[in-house]
Amino acid sequence: MGKKLKVGIIGAGRIGKVHTLSIMNYIPEVEIKAISDIYFDAAKEWAEQNGIPVATADYKEILNDPEIDAVLVCSSTDTHSQISVEAAKAGKHIFCEKPVDLTIPKVEAVIDAAKEAGVKLQIGFNRRFDHNFRKVRELIKDGTLGDIHILKITSRDPEPPSAQYAAASGGMFMDMTIHDFDMARFMMGSEPTEIYVASACLVDPAIGEAGDVDTAIITIRFENGGLCVIDNSRKAVYGYDQRVEAFGSKGKAEISNDTPSTAVWSTAEGVFGEKPKYFFLERYMDSFADEMKQFMAAIINDTETPVVGFDGLQPIKMGLAAKKSVLEGRPVKLSEIV
Amino acid sequence: MGKKLKVGIIGAGRIGKVHTLSIMNYIPEVEIKAISDIYFDAAKEWAEQNGIPVATADYKEILNDPEIDAVLVCSSTDTHSQISVEAAKAGKHIFCEKPVDLTIPKVEAVIDAAKEAGVKLQIGFNRRFDHNFRKVRELIKDGTLGDIHILKITSRDPEPPSAQYAAASGGMFMDMTIHDFDMARFMMGSEPTEIYVASACLVDPAIGEAGDVDTAIITIRFENGGLCVIDNSRKAVYGYDQRVEAFGSKGKAEISNDTPSTAVWSTAEGVFGEKPKYFFLERYMDSFADEMKQFMAAIINDTETPVVGFDGLQPIKMGLAAKKSVLEGRPVKLSEIV
Amino acid sequence: MGKKLKVGIIGAGRIGKVHTLSIMNYIPEVEIKAISDIYFDAAKEWAEQNGIPVATADYKEILNDPEIDAVLVCSSTDTHSQISVEAAKAGKHIFCEKPVDLTIPKVEAVIDAAKEAGVKLQIGFNRRFDHNFRKVRELIKDGTLGDIHILKITSRDPEPPSAQYAAASGGMFMDMTIHDFDMARFMMGSEPTEIYVASACLVDPAIGEAGDVDTAIITIRFENGGLCVIDNSRKAVYGYDQRVEAFGSKGKAEISNDTPSTAVWSTAEGVFGEKPKYFFLERYMDSFADEMKQFMAAIINDTETPVVGFDGLQPIKMGLAAKKSVLEGRPVKLSEIV
Amino acid sequence: MGKKLKVGIIGAGRIGKVHTLSIMNYIPEVEIKAISDIYFDAAKEWAEQNGIPVATADYKEILNDPEIDAVLVCSSTDTHSQISVEAAKAGKHIFCEKPVDLTIPKVEAVIDAAKEAGVKLQIGFNRRFDHNFRKVRELIKDGTLGDIHILKITSRDPEPPSAQYAAASGGMFMDMTIHDFDMARFMMGSEPTEIYVASACLVDPAIGEAGDVDTAIITIRFENGGLCVIDNSRKAVYGYDQRVEAFGSKGKAEISNDTPSTAVWSTAEGVFGEKPKYFFLERYMDSFADEMKQFMAAIINDTETPVVGFDGLQPIKMGLAAKKSVLEGRPVKLSEIV
Repeated sequence: MGKKLKVGIIGAGRIGKVHTLSIMNYIPEVEIKAISDIYFDAAKEWAEQNGIPVATADYKEILNDPEIDAVLVCSSTDTHSQISVEAAKAGKHIFCEKPVDLTIPKVEAVIDAAKEAGVKLQIGFNRRFDHNFRKVRELIKDGTLGDIHILKITSRDPEPPSAQYAAASGGMFMDMTIHDFDMARFMMGSEPTEIYVASACLVDPAIGEAGDVDTAIITIRFENGGLCVIDNSRKAVYGYDQRVEAFGSKGKAEISNDTPSTAVWSTAEGVFGEKPKYFFLERYMDSFADEMKQFMAAIINDTETPVVGFDGLQPIKMGLAAKKSVLEGRPVKLSEIV
Repeated sequence: MGKKLKVGIIGAGRIGKVHTLSIMNYIPEVEIKAISDIYFDAAKEWAEQNGIPVATADYKEILNDPEIDAVLVCSSTDTHSQISVEAAKAGKHIFCEKPVDLTIPKVEAVIDAAKEAGVKLQIGFNRRFDHNFRKVRELIKDGTLGDIHILKITSRDPEPPSAQYAAASGGMFMDMTIHDFDMARFMMGSEPTEIYVASACLVDPAIGEAGDVDTAIITIRFENGGLCVIDNSRKAVYGYDQRVEAFGSKGKAEISNDTPSTAVWSTAEGVFGEKPKYFFLERYMDSFADEMKQFMAAIINDTETPVVGFDGLQPIKMGLAAKKSVLEGRPVKLSEIV
Repeated sequence: MGKKLKVGIIGAGRIGKVHTLSIMNYIPEVEIKAISDIYFDAAKEWAEQNGIPVATADYKEILNDPEIDAVLVCSSTDTHSQISVEAAKAGKHIFCEKPVDLTIPKVEAVIDAAKEAGVKLQIGFNRRFDHNFRKVRELIKDGTLGDIHILKITSRDPEPPSAQYAAASGGMFMDMTIHDFDMARFMMGSEPTEIYVASACLVDPAIGEAGDVDTAIITIRFENGGLCVIDNSRKAVYGYDQRVEAFGSKGKAEISNDTPSTAVWSTAEGVFGEKPKYFFLERYMDSFADEMKQFMAAIINDTETPVVGFDGLQPIKMGLAAKKSVLEGRPVKLSEIV
Repeated sequence: MGKKLKVGIIGAGRIGKVHTLSIMNYIPEVEIKAISDIYFDAAKEWAEQNGIPVATADYKEILNDPEIDAVLVCSSTDTHSQISVEAAKAGKHIFCEKPVDLTIPKVEAVIDAAKEAGVKLQIGFNRRFDHNFRKVRELIKDGTLGDIHILKITSRDPEPPSAQYAAASGGMFMDMTIHDFDMARFMMGSEPTEIYVASACLVDPAIGEAGDVDTAIITIRFENGGLCVIDNSRKAVYGYDQRVEAFGSKGKAEISNDTPSTAVWSTAEGVFGEKPKYFFLERYMDSFADEMKQFMAAIINDTETPVVGFDGLQPIKMGLAAKKSVLEGRPVKLSEIV
């Protein structure tokens, strides 16, 4: 093994910490040189705990460090685009958390900047790397299921965010469904053409008052002729519900949720099993590590990243189409979103 | 036990035979006195095999028999309405197979005639009596699942009908989805207000040429605020796929398909299980018996039938709304269907 | 169809009634001409309810009826052997409930009598006809699992019998495990050579005081080299637990219990499913019909019955070996049982 | 956090490497200072790859290092006892891989030495820390299942070892079943009193020629009155089969195997699922980390280790009883093993 790849992490919040640990535990070829956070103490404390040499309040310090090969943009969503553009200009490879931005031009700016600078760009759609979803994708890719006619995605959170957060995040479609939009494209291997949403506010009236919805059934048509339906809820009392069913001309594939154990117990009262793993950190921890491994491998081997800039753009368009469908009460073509 | 209830069966096709056997095997309080079929030989042969005293080519003979208390209308769909109206006028209780008719006025005529004559009317939506669906309905009714936010119905046939049949039957929505429309109302315990359909012809181009579709995702809004999605395919190569998932404020319930056995076997090649029971006769045989038992009980005890005339009307309206949605590419309110 | 086969049922208790209904509902080729019971009123009432022409207190009346082709011996266990021998001498085909008798000579007498008279003899081991067990047997027979190395049978009742009954019935091994001994031979397709039992009285001390056990692990060696283990309990609080696992050189097969529905529901409290069908009447009803169909078919087609006299003898020997193993605290060879 | 705990690893084979990674990835409070292996190159290469300061061919160098607080004895089985005794004398806390030794006196010597030196001793029965087994143990401990009447352990390897290895390892009972003996005690929370084994050589004749067996059904009586049965095979063609079922006065609990994904797919050919995770490294990786965490926590907090010396002794006695049972063809009391 030659010189280690050096990376900087921008943002010491929850996801920045997850990526820190993935790299330290599983990717010996990579060294975290620096971490930044606008709350300097957060960066400093995390750096000390994990032996990261540099902590700073200013991400530009990371961009200006000539030793650093790649950056992970884990800051707040509204800063993703600008930092990523600057990182590209600084010649750093970029792993950018989702969503890249809530507007199309800013996402496109990142894609263009990365292209111009010739740096790798990977978007943080970690669920593509999940063992369950990946298996279904393989069964589609290898032809086991034939042409996909109907794709069903269930995506329900265990708890709604605060109404305040819900509104600020761009709403349910941009904050939560965006993962499902990506999953739909990933599974279908085709591009969406039309979206219709039936949504409601059934979980928390405060979310409705803040102008958002918390429950939705989203129908999507794809270029390949296939149909997709996503059902979302901000609150599944039994826990995080993350499933997909792909139905095609040659068969179907389904996944069930991961559980803390496979135990089933039976008493005079009934038969009992485990609830799903609680939330995304429990359920998707391995997928965070795998996306990181593949990002680093793409840099080391100079190959394409597994989730490119266009994969960051399309879900934004789908989210905008979904919002328009709710507003106008009709199916909306993706071509209307510009 | 006093005098046995006497019934006549109009139509000696597949479903007439199913009801014959249910009555003979499970309902000792009831005697089948007569069976009719426009193909007299069919009626005669079946009557002889099963010890039914009277076989006739003319259903009027059954309606005119003063000994007969109730009739089962199992003839071809286009004759359901007229025969049922005549049966009501003849003072017979009526079990009418679904769909009552493909047009609203003719269904209403049956409802009105039964009301005027003071006879019982039950519509043949047998799936309400299925052990799996019934259990989910119980979990909804007893409050275990709370308010239902999302209802998902999967309904896929193992084989498409001929394109010719598909067209003549009124199309997929009237022939196949009609059961799912009934199931949606049964589960929700509420009335539909709006329907949107994304459909396609992906299974057999001949079905498309005949003017029908074979694949659909149908979104339905209900008065109680709940959302429902039905996914339909005319061809699931692995067999008859009949499931429901109800998701509410307090939990969810799901059913899986019935299988010929519970065996699971594992070899060096993989892990294997049984495909679903092949088609509706295998899957729903018990439910046919149960709907018949409850129809007879409603007569004997003079109580309301479990599936009334209005339950025959609403799915027709939903089918017409679905067709309109496909035609106009937009969500259609049930109030538009008159 | 020619002349109907005529049968007489000896014993109008629970199992006699089950067979009555199976024949009436599913076997049109057969007519029940007579039923007997030492409690005449029981026979009479059942005969009237089901249109059986003859009811009698004396089974000999049935044996002497020249019109009757076959008898079902459903009387109390201690009379099985004598009645069956007389039935053979009267030239009647015999379906004899299990156990034929608790002693070897009396079982052999039945086998010999049937052979001499040239009549069919079938023993009532209905579980061989159960959809789940049958599927595992098919996977063994068709070679999917290779040579069977380990066979595991779980057989637990939902409720213990009274201690009085437990003792009078010949004890757990003769009354309950006897079905499992038959299942072991059926699955293995080989004969047992040695049995070791570790048993205990853990459910009800009164059973122990009556000289019986209520919990056991039974290890059986087979001629083909395979090993089998049966675990028994007189009381599984969650219901009737009836499973088998066959493990061989090419794979394994397992079955799970049948349940009233396939529903699974999830709430904040946990994930819930249905308990097994309660007891043998619910679980094995179809198998009772199937054993009856095959018995009648063997007569009509003059073929061998699917469960012959030797199949009635071997489980008795296994039961005696099991009792000896408990008494002497050591493995007992079948060859010791004479 | 104060000074880090310093440990040395004796043995750089597979299990030594597993523990290295567990400590490095999950236990920041611990530093691996040295690793030894009689094949020096193996120790050296692994030390370099993982930044371990010291590599040596001589484990005594580790024992003599005053900075080292604890050692992991991961050398070949025949050296476990001697090294552990020396480690105790050197004042090191000891994590000793299973089996401690194949003879009782040598295991007792380790227990005595650790006691005398006042050092912690933990035996490497990692399965106690597995998420599935642990859940069943919790259901027993918290009383959900009542008194345990029947405990069933299934333990089958995907591939037999070479006959040469099988013989050298002390045979199947000492090498493979030893984990199941420990599991039986762990689940039961009671001590074994008697063991009976029915075993055979069905997988590979060479194993039989080497004097060992490859298939077994093992019945164990426990002090608390409960019965246990273990079934073992050296070769399950579908993969590593590791399950337990606990049946008690108030209910039962079962676990199924872990799989690479939860996907189930259905085609015209059938219904398919994933095979179990291949072997113990895939299945038990998390449990290796958890046993290590708890060993280190016991040292840091000066509490008892979760698997003490006596837990290393009892399975050896059970293995010797099992061997004696095979040899003498009878149940053997544990009190016979001295």
